[in-house]
Order: sequence, then structure tokens, then C-alpha cells
Amino acid sequence: MYKTNKIIFSLSLVLATATTGIAQQPKRLIDEVNPFIGTSNFGTTNPGAIVPNGLMSITPFNVMGSAELNKYDKDARWWSTPYSADNKFFTGFSHVNLSGVGCPELGSILLSASTGKLDVDYTHYGTTLSQEKAHPGYYTAVLDKYNVQAEVSATTRTSITAFTFREGGMSNILVNLGQGLTNESGATVRFLNDSTLVGSKLMGTFCYNPQAVFNQYFAIRISRRAPQSGYWKKQPPMQGVEAEWDHDHGRYKLYPTYRKEMSGNDIGVWFTFETKPNEVIYVQTGVSFVSAENALLNLDTEQRGFDFHKVKSEAETAWEQALRTVEVEGGTAEQRTVFYTALYHLLIHPNILQDVNGEYPMMGSLRTGKTRHDRYTVYSLWDTYRNVHPLLSLLYPKKQLAMVETMLDMYRESGWLPKWELYGQETLTMEGDPSLIVLNDTWHRGIRGFDTQLAYEAMVKGATTRGKDNLMRPDNDDYLSRGYVPLREKFDNSVSHALEYYIADWNLSQFARSLGKKKEADLFYRRSLGYKHYFDKETGLLRPILPNGKFLTPFNPTLGRDFEPNPGFHEGNSWNYSFFVPHDIKGLSKLMGGEQAFVRKLQSVFDEGNYDPANEPDIAYPYLFTYYPKEAWRTQQLTKKLLSEHFHNSPSGIPGNDDTGTMSAWAIYTMMGFYPDCPGSTTYALTTPTFERITIHLDPDYYTQKKLIVEKRAASGDGGDYFHTLEVGNKLYKSTYRLDHNSLVNAGKIAFLTQGKP
Amino acid sequence: MYKTNKIIFSLSLVLATATTGIAQQPKRLIDEVNPFIGTSNFGTTNPGAIVPNGLMSITPFNVMGSAELNKYDKDARWWSTPYSADNKFFTGFSHVNLSGVGCPELGSILLSASTGKLDVDYTHYGTTLSQEKAHPGYYTAVLDKYNVQAEVSATTRTSITAFTFREGGMSNILVNLGQGLTNESGATVRFLNDSTLVGSKLMGTFCYNPQAVFNQYFAIRISRRAPQSGYWKKQPPMQGVEAEWDHDHGRYKLYPTYRKEMSGNDIGVWFTFETKPNEVIYVQTGVSFVSAENALLNLDTEQRGFDFHKVKSEAETAWEQALRTVEVEGGTAEQRTVFYTALYHLLIHPNILQDVNGEYPMMGSLRTGKTRHDRYTVYSLWDTYRNVHPLLSLLYPKKQLAMVETMLDMYRESGWLPKWELYGQETLTMEGDPSLIVLNDTWHRGIRGFDTQLAYEAMVKGATTRGKDNLMRPDNDDYLSRGYVPLREKFDNSVSHALEYYIADWNLSQFARSLGKKKEADLFYRRSLGYKHYFDKETGLLRPILPNGKFLTPFNPTLGRDFEPNPGFHEGNSWNYSFFVPHDIKGLSKLMGGEQAFVRKLQSVFDEGNYDPANEPDIAYPYLFTYYPKEAWRTQQLTKKLLSEHFHNSPSGIPGNDDTGTMSAWAIYTMMGFYPDCPGSTTYALTTPTFERITIHLDPDYYTQKKLIVEKRAASGDGGDYFHTLEVGNKLYKSTYRLDHNSLVNAGKIAFLTQGKP
Repeated sequence: MYKTNKIIFSLSLVLATATTGIAQQPKRLIDEVNPFIGTSNFGTTNPGAIVPNGLMSITPFNVMGSAELNKYDKDARWWSTPYSADNKFFTGFSHVNLSGVGCPELGSILLSASTGKLDVDYTHYGTTLSQEKAHPGYYTAVLDKYNVQAEVSATTRTSITAFTFREGGMSNILVNLGQGLTNESGATVRFLNDSTLVGSKLMGTFCYNPQAVFNQYFAIRISRRAPQSGYWKKQPPMQGVEAEWDHDHGRYKLYPTYRKEMSGNDIGVWFTFETKPNEVIYVQTGVSFVSAENALLNLDTEQRGFDFHKVKSEAETAWEQALRTVEVEGGTAEQRTVFYTALYHLLIHPNILQDVNGEYPMMGSLRTGKTRHDRYTVYSLWDTYRNVHPLLSLLYPKKQLAMVETMLDMYRESGWLPKWELYGQETLTMEGDPSLIVLNDTWHRGIRGFDTQLAYEAMVKGATTRGKDNLMRPDNDDYLSRGYVPLREKFDNSVSHALEYYIADWNLSQFARSLGKKKEADLFYRRSLGYKHYFDKETGLLRPILPNGKFLTPFNPTLGRDFEPNPGFHEGNSWNYSFFVPHDIKGLSKLMGGEQAFVRKLQSVFDEGNYDPANEPDIAYPYLFTYYPKEAWRTQQLTKKLLSEHFHNSPSGIPGNDDTGTMSAWAIYTMMGFYPDCPGSTTYALTTPTFERITIHLDPDYYTQKKLIVEKRAASGDGGDYFHTLEVGNKLYKSTYRLDHNSLVNAGKIAFLTQGKP
Repeated sequence: MYKTNKIIFSLSLVLATATTGIAQQPKRLIDEVNPFIGTSNFGTTNPGAIVPNGLMSITPFNVMGSAELNKYDKDARWWSTPYSADNKFFTGFSHVNLSGVGCPELGSILLSASTGKLDVDYTHYGTTLSQEKAHPGYYTAVLDKYNVQAEVSATTRTSITAFTFREGGMSNILVNLGQGLTNESGATVRFLNDSTLVGSKLMGTFCYNPQAVFNQYFAIRISRRAPQSGYWKKQPPMQGVEAEWDHDHGRYKLYPTYRKEMSGNDIGVWFTFETKPNEVIYVQTGVSFVSAENALLNLDTEQRGFDFHKVKSEAETAWEQALRTVEVEGGTAEQRTVFYTALYHLLIHPNILQDVNGEYPMMGSLRTGKTRHDRYTVYSLWDTYRNVHPLLSLLYPKKQLAMVETMLDMYRESGWLPKWELYGQETLTMEGDPSLIVLNDTWHRGIRGFDTQLAYEAMVKGATTRGKDNLMRPDNDDYLSRGYVPLREKFDNSVSHALEYYIADWNLSQFARSLGKKKEADLFYRRSLGYKHYFDKETGLLRPILPNGKFLTPFNPTLGRDFEPNPGFHEGNSWNYSFFVPHDIKGLSKLMGGEQAFVRKLQSVFDEGNYDPANEPDIAYPYLFTYYPKEAWRTQQLTKKLLSEHFHNSPSGIPGNDDTGTMSAWAIYTMMGFYPDCPGSTTYALTTPTFERITIHLDPDYYTQKKLIVEKRAASGDGGDYFHTLEVGNKLYKSTYRLDHNSLVNAGKIAFLTQGKP
């Protein structure tokens, strides 16, 4: 009895320690990350495995096949993510996925396992999952129906999946090439040998752009020779005599012996074997967007043998190193998790595109290029120009330089900088001229190792080409002749377009000025102020203008919430856009009646529910109070409130689509105490940081100081959420709420001296 | 006036000459052939272009897309040919087709043209044809809807199509990879360059054997660069929000810019350009059953440039040479056309399978072999062992030897001789052990340059392996233990199976005897007489036996006409099979009660409508009277009647499925005056030839005589349809109606002395 009691006692202690979370900090930053954040509330992130900016991502796919077990079905509504925390019916691991986007794409090549009699219908072989766990580079769960544990990890271009068949017996591996998130269809696959498959599946029509299509090539290898294997293909339905004779018609037909190409809309591959209890079967997948040969080369190069531990361990190390660029102290466990998860999400996109041999699909996808620098893809630039690229310039300047070099290569290849690029295809999603801003912003942050003359040429092309030939600015004729874009069609988003051109032209004027082109700089600067055309004195807001030059009437400035169609504005209402002239806030303020009127109006956005924390046009609004030192407390109050309201350690912990890291970048900056409220300007708006101490390790190739330390120190005994005083290096900055990038990165340390009241 | 009159006069003369067909014999034998014979009445031949035994055939496809214009639709009934003379709605030229078969297969990769706005829906772009003309190696017609003339020709592995856009203007070339005769589906294609496509389309499930599938690889080249081109793919239907956003859902989507792989169930490729009036666009297609690379190599090797005239001219020459093996004099124009068309149909199948580099899909299609001799495919052996291969041995012994070598290679590769082989796949269509018979028959006709030991081994394997492992004789256990196959399932075709094994075993005994294996020869000979088990004294016919050894009761010997299911018999009734013991007619005759009873019963088959001229089991029946010299006039009377009733110069001029030349071989032999009524025996039954003089040019590598001349000479002044006397060489054969192969081929000349009455 004594012995038993002791054991029970010890066990209780262990459990208490585990559940109360007492004791040591986790030693690894990757354990601070919760990859499930953003997997509900339309965050559209996913919990699967990827390495930083890796081409490959592998994630559980659970958005089809069961109306009972799933809340959301990819085909029953607008749906853009392979995984939802609100769903339960798993149908495989999808290979290569988008994170935090608003349109369905990729999320295909579904790998799963089952036991017992082979059934290749995903509505049958799908299963609930339990014991889901994930950290960067690793995800695991149990496939309940089969008591099979699945674990996945990834290298840059390949994945590995370990299926542990806990009970052994007849076991199946299933590769579904028919289903997936993409709206495109059609695949071809063949057995290269008994245990290796190669093929391609068409992807594309992202955001319903019908022509932006591209093949995802793959090579798949299984660790054990299967005595039985083959293809399946769902047969087209037949009628009459044909149907009588063809027993497979309308069903999944199995091809257990054929081994050459199998092509079709709804095809797959299965392997069946007898396993011993707890036998582990590994499946590796390599991908490429150039060719099946390259997918195989990627697989052969990045994985020798089937060493799950090695892949996982290297993925963890890569993440640990990336995350360690910023070390935080203080804050709650949840705040740390929110912060590091945001940093994790920052490093999902853009993705490395080139194969191990340097080959990549050139812009337009018809030719294959060979690159010397990392070639990136997945540029959601309308989102990311605002904060993702500025933050990458600060934290990962080498990545940012390669991304900019990639953008210039795209210009070389296609004649245009990217707008919303996806695997070598311009999807033309959203509006504006965002690349230009990224180029200028990067240059002004001191990342200058790219061809600035070419960059300027590319920028000017977008700014000056006539509309019908202009990929960036299709309504450039109106814009150039009138200084604004009139509303020519009911939902043409004309004001949103023009506002993007103004901030772009302001950036272009900055860049021209830096290159000594004063005349051009003046011209583009003047254009950037054209927003004033839209200013309507009656409402004090920006208002669509009709082709006859008069304001649109009637005009409802609150119309356009929740993606409701709204004349002149894209994904938002007039309030969401009316302060979006980040390059001339003082000018806007003047139009609005000066400081007090401006501040009152801006505050009303938050007070009256016109602030959308989940879409880009207004996300810098909380920081605009910093233009008026007396009002800067509002920024500090609002950012704390917005962080705590919208960013949690839970699946719904991102306010909406993460927008390939843009929402996450907002959280990272905000938690660090500074925000680039005007892209292309190097001035940050400041707010109270979340953590007591933040150490940013700066890349010595780009920055003089090795570190930037951000401290939050209680100015008086009470500490608190507000600050009036800042120390930059050794100097005191009183009543200053905006700080230049150069001052920041050269400071070594900045300290926010906080107090309890505004 | 005078002048005008003269012109009219001249023109009338020309027209009169043309329409009355006066004047010269056509100089070319190819002009005697009417490729439209067999394109109605379920002959299932097609009028397209092919070279003798060529891998490529290209033919108009008109069996889908219009319920109004077509009498038959491939999907509305059992349908097995790409072309019907009863239909009118053309949807393209299909590449690689089967001729004279009873199951749907191949007949895909549909090439067509249109003018005006591009429309890729075949129900729209299809058109009626007019001015159809064809001769061996050439077919032409006008696509009415577009006033485009299409002409096609072929080399061994490639085709060329010339589209003459008579009116010019916006013109389209369409390659439909989704539709076709095959019941399989799924294709993949890609642009190799602006004017070249490569890809594959899955074929198979011939006669609803679900696993006999194989890819047809193709390379397609167009003579002009098209300013616009691309893929199409019919999109799967979507529902709800997806359907609202994806405007292509459920429709044919065009992909005008994408150029890498396109895969799916219903895809195609289009080219659009402006043509001048009468501009000709050429499209070449190469095929392979090994790889797309080989398809391209075949195309590059067999066609340089776009020289339609050269391809056509070489195809015509090849046919002219092949047809000239037999020269006939006398007979009517229709008889000559029937004869040469039959000879043409004899040389469609089997087809050369190897690519120009010697590669071919080994039996089972999983490996690629390299051959030194011509490798053949499309072995419909249940049909062709009866007369096609004996006739090829006589007329084209080199082809026949390569076919036999191919069959032995198939044994080497797969462990089995072929039964119904299709592009490296055993389709297991029909029953019996037919290869064995072909091997023995070929050897006995003096074509012996193959490995006889291996042949014997292969033959014995089929004859002796137990049923469950026996591809040839699945019911071999019963057969070996009982000497017959009992009816174990209602429609198991047990009697038909056993009858095939008897004739096979008789052949095997012949072969064993020739190799000096007397004991084995005796054993197999005894087995070949097992048919006697089935002889039912009550009806005097062969009757199914139940597993308990008793005859099936009730028993209706006329049940089974017109493919009506019938216990014990396959595609026929007891009457169609009861005389099918060609190796022991005298024994059968004895069972039936001797000569008179036998003759009476045999005659009743014809008199009472139990003779099926369109299916194999009874096609030698008319010749069986020759076993009794006094009754041989019946053979002469019947064969003349059957020829005139069932073989005409019209689309319905073949009595039913040509069965890859078997019906045609029946007509050729019959019109020449001799028939191999017992395959494997070298004795021909004789009948009155159709022509006054027939010159058969014998291959000097195999035959001592250069020629065999068959003459029909009037014995008395009146001439006529019957003969009693035959001259063989210089010797008179009186009252002899059966003649040995060796006597025939060494005779130099045989003469039938005819008279008007039996």
C-alpha cells in the first residue's frame, strides 16, 4: 500500500506541474508558437508543417466530405483554407497551401491512410482527428477511425508523413489527386517504380481569375513496397446499354495493375499492405512548379532515406533560429504566444519558388528560368506592402532583398512588377501599384543591393502607361487627366483605386528624389495629393466622384461593412478609406478642419464601429493620433485594446484573414511599440510595447548595431500602459510619438517610460 | 452559238463517259477498292486512311453529337465503330481505330476544323459531310457547315490531314481529347512548342474488360503558327457560391495562354488563324503505345515537312503492291470491288505496333521491349484463326511469320499466348485456345521460321494447366477430367468453350506428331474427339451437359439467334455449333447417322434459317458438303448464293462485323474457289471460283512456284456455276472437291471446268 501511495503522489505532482504551468519557461521559442491560432474566425491560417518561407507546406485538410461533422464545406460557401478548427472530418494532408488568404487555391494532393478493406471514396475514408498537436515544422494527430497516428514535417521543398498503424493489419495509403481546395481540376500521375509516383495537378483561378492557372508537379515516395497498389479514377456516369455493361460507371474504379500515365478529373493512387502493430509507414512528397523531374530532384536532394526525426529536427532548428531574431521578456504567456505565432505567420509567405537546381517558372509560367538568389512567390502585395515588407526589411533584410530582386526579375520577365503573384502567374487580385511602394520602402530602409535604375524604370512604367495597357493602373487615363478616378461602373472601386495610386505616387516621388530626379519627384508628389478631389465638405469624408465631376449622390458613408458591395470602395466603406492618405495626414487633417476636428472624426471611427481591424485600408488608423502629441495616448489606448480584443491564443485569435502575414505584422509591430503607418516613409508611429524587454538581433550586414533593445520601464512606481517619454540610445525624447527608422536601428536601445494614466 | 453548242456537246460526252463507266478498266487496283463497304449493317469497318497493317489509321468519326442527324449514337446503344454510313454528323477524324470489331475501343483524338467564331463544343462544331470519297490510303470529304475540304492520308505510324479553307477568314483547328469511341476516359496534353502537341489518352475496357487499359500517346503538329491557340476543358459543375463566381463551371473553359500540361476528362486543343481563300492547313499526327517521345520520333521519322502528296502517294503504292499479290480477271465490276475490298480489309489487322526505334509495349504494358521483327497487335484470334491467318500464310507469308513470332514473344513476356490481344493487353474476349491453332496451321503451311520448341511448350501449357491458372482454358479441370465442360452457370458458354478446346487439341496433336511426339499426339487426338459427349441422339445435335452428366432439359436448339443469351453456346444456337468439329466431320457424320442424314441435316441449317453468315462458328458449314463428292454441288450452289446475298459493293456489303477481316477472308477464299474449312489441316474444300482467272503471286522465299493461277473454264459451251472436274497443274482431278495446300501451291495452275448444272 505504501508503495502504491507514493507512486500516486508522485504522479499527482507531475500532473499538477503540467497543468498549472508552473516552473521553467519553455526552452524553445517554437514551443511558444501555437499554429492553431487563426484556424477559426476566417483567419485562414493552417496548423501544418512548413519551414520558414518554404515552398512545401503540409497541413490537415478537413473542409469537405461530411455535412454532419463539418461546420464549413469548401463547396457550400466562399471558402479559402484547407483547415478549419470548426470542422472535424479529415480527408488527408494537403501539400502546398496558402496561409491567411481570402480566395481558394492549392490545398490539394491529399495524402491519407486507412485500415481494413480499401475504400477510395473520401466521404467514406475520411475520419475525425484527435490528439492534434503542432509546433513550427511539426503537426500530429490520430486518425480516430483507424487508430493511426499521423505526423508530418517538411523541408523547403518536400514533406514527410509518418503513419503509425497502431493496430496493424490491412493498411492503406491513399493519395487523392481529384479533390482539394483549388477550383481548377485535372491531374496526371504515373508510377515511376513500385514505390514512387510522379505527376502534376492543375491549380489556379485564384480569386476566380480564370486564366491564372499553373501545374503543381509532385513526386511521392513510400517507404515500403506495397504488394497491392494502383490508381483509382471516378468514372463518368453512363446511360443505357453502356451503363449496364460498365459496372464502374459513375463509381471509383480501381486499376490494380496498370502503371503508365493515369489522367483525369478525379483520380488517385492507393497502396495496400499488411502492417504489424505500431508499424510506421513513411510517405515523402517533393513538389516543384517547373516539372515532375524537378519535384523528384527536390525530393532526392532534400531527403535521403526516410528519416522523419532529421527532417523534423532541422525544421525545428530553422524556426528556432528565425524566431530568435526577436526575443521578448515579460508579458503574459498568451502575449508571448500571440507574438511568436505572429512572427511564425510572418514567415510563411512569400515562399521560395526555385527548385534545388535553381529553376523556377518565369513570370507567365511559359518558360523556365534559373535564379542565383532565392526566387519568391505568393506576393499578396496590396496587403503586405503596408507592414510585412517593412518588417522583413528590419528583421530579415536578406530575405527582403531577395524578394525585391525577385520582383525586379518578374519585371524583366513579364514587363510588369507583380500585383498579386502566385507561382509565376499574375492573378490581378485587388488594386493599386503596390510593388513600387515595396521597392521604395526597402530602399529607404537601407536595403539597396538591387538595380535601382531598373526599379525606377519599372515604377515609372506603372505610373505613366496608359490605362488599357497598364496592368497596375487600368484606370490610369482618368487618373492622369483628372487627378482622380471617377465612378464609371457601379462597383468599380474607383476611390480605392485612386487612393492606392496616390500613396504609390508619393512613394515614387520619394524614390525619384533619392535618385536626384527632382522634376519627376515634384510631378509625382503633386499627383499624390490628388486625393483632395474626393474630399466632400458635406460629410467631411472621401466620396466617389461621377464622370461629370459631381459627387455620387445619394452617398452613405457607412455602406460597405462586411464586404457589402459599395460604389467606389473595395471591401470597405468610406470611413475605412477616408483617412487612408498616410503620406499627407496633416494635409487631410487640414481639409477636415484641423487638429481637433480630425482627431474627433478619427476617434469616432473607433467609437462608432467604423473601424475594421481585419482589413488593410484602415489598419494604420490607430497610429494616426501620433501626429498630434497631445492625442498620442489615444494610440496607446487603442492599440492595447485592439490587441487584447482581436489577438488571442485561440483558433479565433486573428481578427480575420491573416492576409499572408499582414495582420500578424500589425500585431508584431504593435507589441514591439512602433508601427510604419506610412509605407515608404521611414517614420514609425510609437505606442506602448507589450513586453518589458524586446531584443531584436539586427543583421550585421545591414545594420551597424547588432541589437535593438526595446524596453518598457515604469516611469513612476506604478508602471502602466501609457508613455510620454522615450529614451533613444542615451538621449531623452520627450513628448515624441514618432521616430525615424535610422534613429531606431542605430539607437542600440530605446526605452518607453510608462505610467498608469494617459 | 456554234461555239457554245460545241462546248456543251463535249461536256455531255465527258459526263456520259463518266457516269456510264464505259471504257478502260481502272489502271490501279486501289481504285477497285471501296472503303465504304462494311460501314453499315454493323460491318464496323471504316472508310479512313491506313497503310497495310499500319499502326495509324485515321477515319471520319460520326457517331455522337446529334440525335437528329445520326441514326446511331455511340452512347445510346452497343456501338463499336467510329463511323456509320447511316449517320451524318461528323465531329472529327479519329486516330487509330479498330476495323470490323464488335466492342467499342480507340476511335479517339478527334481532329476537326471550323470557321468563324471559335466554339469547342462538339455538338456545335460538328457538321454534315458531303462529297465523301475514299480509296486505300486516302479519304476526303467536305465539311459542309464550313465549306472546308478535308483530306487524310497515313504512313505506318502517322497521319496527315489537309484542311482546305475554301472561303478563308477566321479558321479553327480543333483537337478533341475528351470524346471518342473508347469507354475509358482521361487525357493529358501539352504544347511542346507553338505548333506541336504531345500527350496521352487512356484507352481500354475493350468488351468491358475493365482492366485492359493502355495509353495512346500522340504528337500533333500543325503547318502554320496560329496567332491564337490554347486548351479547353469542360469544367465540372459547381453549386452555390462557387457556381456564382466561376463562370466556366459546367462549361467548356478556354485557356488561351497556358502551355504546360493540361489533364482531365474532357479536354482539347484549338488553333485559330485568319486564312486566305483556299488556304490549306496541314495537321500531322504521330502515335505510339510506348511514350509521347516515341510518338514524336515516329512523326519526325516518317514525315519530313508537310508533304501531303508524298504521304498519299506512298500509301497508295503500298496498297497497290499489296493488292497486286492477287490479280483477277473476269467477274463483274462489283465482284472485283468486293474482292479487292475484302483483300483490303484483310490487311487492316493485326497492326504493326513497334515504333520506328523498335520499341513496343510488352505484353502487360508495364515494360518496353525492343523488337527485331515487326511486332504486331490487335489479335482477334477466335475470329482470325479460322481463315485470316491461313490466308496470310498463303499470300503474305513474311507478315504471317512476324505475327507468329510476335505471338511467341507475347508468350515469352507474359507466360501466355494471346487470346484477344490489344496493344499489349490481354482482353480475354471470346473463348478457346486460338493461338495454338494459328501456330500449327502456319507451320503446316510451310512457314516454319519460328521457335517450334517454344511454340510447343506454349501450346502444351494452355492444354494442360489447371483451370484456375489457365488464361486460355479456364474450365480446363472439367475438360481434362470429364472430356467435356458441363454447364455450371446458366450462360457460361460451356459447349462453345469445349468445342474450341477440341479443335485446339486436334491441332496440338498434329503439331506434336510433326515434332515426333507420338504419345502426346495420340493423347491430344483422343481429347479432340471428346465432342461426342455432347452429341444428343434425341435431337441429333450437340447439347449442353449438366454437372450431373445429364443433358440440359428442356433444350431448344434454335434458341440463341441474334445474340440472344443461350445456355451453353456463345453468340449462337446449337445449330450454329453442332457441325463445328471441323477436324472430325466424318466422325460427326457417323454420329448423325451417316452421309445422307448428315447431308440432310446440314442442308436444313440453310433451309431453315439456322445459318448465321456473320459469325464464325458456322462459316465453314457450306464447305462441309465437299466431304461427300456427290453433294459437293451444294457447296458450289450455297457459296455463290451466300456471296451474292451478303457481299455487295455497298456500305451494307458485309453480312455483319467483319471481325478484323474474317468475313473478308471468307469472301476472298470463296471467290478464289478454295476454303480452309479445318484450320490446322492443310486441306481446302473447293468451290466454283468467281473469276475467270486469278493470278496469285507467291512469295519466292516460301514457295517454289512464283505464281498460282486459278482458272475457271467452261467445260462445255455454256459455262456455268458448277464444276465436277479440276485440273491441278497438268493433272486432271475428277470428282474431287478437296485439295491439299501443297498440291495447290505447287500446281502452278489449277483450272475449274464448269458447267451450268450441278
